[in-house]
Amino acid sequence: MFQAAVKTFSASSGGGLTCIRHYCKKTARKLRVSEAVSGAGLGANVKVQGWVRSVRPQKANLFLHVNDGSSLQSLQIVASSELNNPSLTFGSAVEVTGTLKKSPHHKQPVELEAEQIRVVGECNPVDFPFKIKERHSLEYLRQFPHLRCRTNAFSSLLRIRSEATTAIHSYFKDNGFLQIHTPIITSNDCEGAGELFQVEPSGPDHDEDENFFSVPAFLTVSGQLHLEVMSGAFSKVYTFGPTFRAENSQSRRHLAEFYMVEAEVSFTQSLEDLTKVMEDMFRSATEHVLAHCVEDVDLFHKHVTPGHREIVDAMLKRKFPVITYSEAIDILKRSSEKFSFPTDWGCDLQTEHEKYLVKHCGNIPVFVTDYPFNLKPFYARDNQDHPEHTAAAVDLLVPGVGELCGGSLREERLDLLRVRLEE
Amino acid sequence: MFQAAVKTFSASSGGGLTCIRHYCKKTARKLRVSEAVSGAGLGANVKVQGWVRSVRPQKANLFLHVNDGSSLQSLQIVASSELNNPSLTFGSAVEVTGTLKKSPHHKQPVELEAEQIRVVGECNPVDFPFKIKERHSLEYLRQFPHLRCRTNAFSSLLRIRSEATTAIHSYFKDNGFLQIHTPIITSNDCEGAGELFQVEPSGPDHDEDENFFSVPAFLTVSGQLHLEVMSGAFSKVYTFGPTFRAENSQSRRHLAEFYMVEAEVSFTQSLEDLTKVMEDMFRSATEHVLAHCVEDVDLFHKHVTPGHREIVDAMLKRKFPVITYSEAIDILKRSSEKFSFPTDWGCDLQTEHEKYLVKHCGNIPVFVTDYPFNLKPFYARDNQDHPEHTAAAVDLLVPGVGELCGGSLREERLDLLRVRLEE
Repeated sequence: MFQAAVKTFSASSGGGLTCIRHYCKKTARKLRVSEAVSGAGLGANVKVQGWVRSVRPQKANLFLHVNDGSSLQSLQIVASSELNNPSLTFGSAVEVTGTLKKSPHHKQPVELEAEQIRVVGECNPVDFPFKIKERHSLEYLRQFPHLRCRTNAFSSLLRIRSEATTAIHSYFKDNGFLQIHTPIITSNDCEGAGELFQVEPSGPDHDEDENFFSVPAFLTVSGQLHLEVMSGAFSKVYTFGPTFRAENSQSRRHLAEFYMVEAEVSFTQSLEDLTKVMEDMFRSATEHVLAHCVEDVDLFHKHVTPGHREIVDAMLKRKFPVITYSEAIDILKRSSEKFSFPTDWGCDLQTEHEKYLVKHCGNIPVFVTDYPFNLKPFYARDNQDHPEHTAAAVDLLVPGVGELCGGSLREERLDLLRVRLEE
Repeated sequence: MFQAAVKTFSASSGGGLTCIRHYCKKTARKLRVSEAVSGAGLGANVKVQGWVRSVRPQKANLFLHVNDGSSLQSLQIVASSELNNPSLTFGSAVEVTGTLKKSPHHKQPVELEAEQIRVVGECNPVDFPFKIKERHSLEYLRQFPHLRCRTNAFSSLLRIRSEATTAIHSYFKDNGFLQIHTPIITSNDCEGAGELFQVEPSGPDHDEDENFFSVPAFLTVSGQLHLEVMSGAFSKVYTFGPTFRAENSQSRRHLAEFYMVEAEVSFTQSLEDLTKVMEDMFRSATEHVLAHCVEDVDLFHKHVTPGHREIVDAMLKRKFPVITYSEAIDILKRSSEKFSFPTDWGCDLQTEHEKYLVKHCGNIPVFVTDYPFNLKPFYARDNQDHPEHTAAAVDLLVPGVGELCGGSLREERLDLLRVRLEE
């Protein structure tokens, strides 16, 4: 892997419009804002680098808030008014050296008593599209993809995403799964899981009648077939990478490019082996994010999805219930709810049904198992039951979303598989 | 992220041609082969599942080796001859229950005294393309991409790759970098880093004159521009994902799809801030792999690159030397080696030059800094020196490969950047 990868590293200065370089003579210890606000380095001479979030000049003192993206919290800087200067504006990049002290105010545990403030990247507050103390709408922020990650909402989201990614990898690693990088460019379209993007070299040198890879090549819609091969050597494998669907649909549920977790386990004999992996992964990733992104998660619970924290806490306390598809149909039929889609046995569950089932089960994630045989792909294991013919497949439905994960036992009986393929 | 991802989980039986299901009545503890051979569960009643690597029937006893991909080592099974049966062949998938005991032989520390052996996936040794005790060439294995991961070479390689991936993520996480998933489908071609693949939906529904994303879309050749934006909010960011080049070149150095690490650091002022990240990452990833994949690495050092272990050990012991491009040119000029490419100041270093420089420095990784200004992209920081005009850029050259990483300080002086863009 090392030999195939060219690694690029780079450095850039703080940002803003112009930039002045300075070298500090004292050797102050470099500290991230997240370390400083958590009390690391109290009493020490430190250097903090980041972007100004607020400037409050008072008679004797100047108060700043500096954020470096390492946490939602900013660090309060207290300086003598003499250190103020016109380029110290909202959005400017600064380097502050001084002593970390306990703050006399209860609003923040620590503050940095500045001895030196250097503006390393200026920011003209007239040109800068974000204004101090204003909460900008997401629609407005869309116009500034190069700057929006400096807002609380986007920076919190990206910190949560980074931690969630770590948590998912940790879960699989701790449970003996091998990580496989399944190919992104592939000639298989898996089970026709969705609309495909085709890939060909661009430019005039490329002969349109000839395929670069000698066969038509597409972006992956699922690594399942590659993982199945790998599970035949490693028993437990997973992949977690970008996946693509060329669906021309502008909705919250359709993305052209998204990240997907897929896992394959050999030597399993019941759906319980799978629901355990799904539940454990969901639970450990959620707990990890709640524990490592306390303030970032709070921000969303406060401003985006009020009441959601209680739902999350409740779902972590209870084991996820398991119902069969037939039981689910019974629940839907007995309900007084008016559904737009039919609830007859054999019909696929729609998002409205899934959300109702989740509510019915106490607003916590619920597994639905043993779907009608004809609704599931050919490789799902035949339960050989009747009169209601089902397959050993399972979906995990979660509050507010509906289906989050799906899976099945794979049909391993060659004779049954042959018959099904012919059909 | 969770909401955007559909997760698929699945289970498959052991593999092979036919499959018989059994349920073991005793509740034996499930153990991976890697756990068993390391002595976990000694004396306990355990169940091991995997693929048969060898069968040696003797008068009273039957000896098997079973591998489940969790380690290079297989577990020795000892059973009474009565447990032998015709479907117990090389390549078949088995489930063995019994007691883990200390082995009387020095070849392996433990062995499993079997009480029960079940063949859960048969394998016809006549049809199976790999033969017991034969070492097949890589060219031969190429024909069986669905089976080759059951060989020692491929399974070791994939375990090493998985651990190396983990190590790289751990290094960045431990050092305060935020992981960013930069987009795979993008409309920018970065610095013209390579030939592009274009992406459009496939199929007849797609209007060829209209772009799906309203602009032409390509597969990423580098996430650098996206990361630069992110470093302006988080200070330290990295990405580690698939990258694409449509170069029509069949060589060990060109892949259409490969994984690349990229990082951006704000508030740096010298190349040393970058070389430290490169050296630390290289060192920690190498040490992690050596510590976690002892046998897998040994396999390659034994059969693929003899003598390589000594080189690796030597490079970990010393700090990587740093030379300037001008010093490198001096070294090349003074050498008695005949090079195919010129070694004049201003010429790009070729692989032959890079390999020579590495050897010259003691066959350990070496940083070359301050390349000619005109060889580096417009955003590399101008050193404003003369008469030999250089840029603050650095490459890491490593034994056997040449350039492995590259990076630069980014030009932050707007006036200089404007002049260069106009040029």
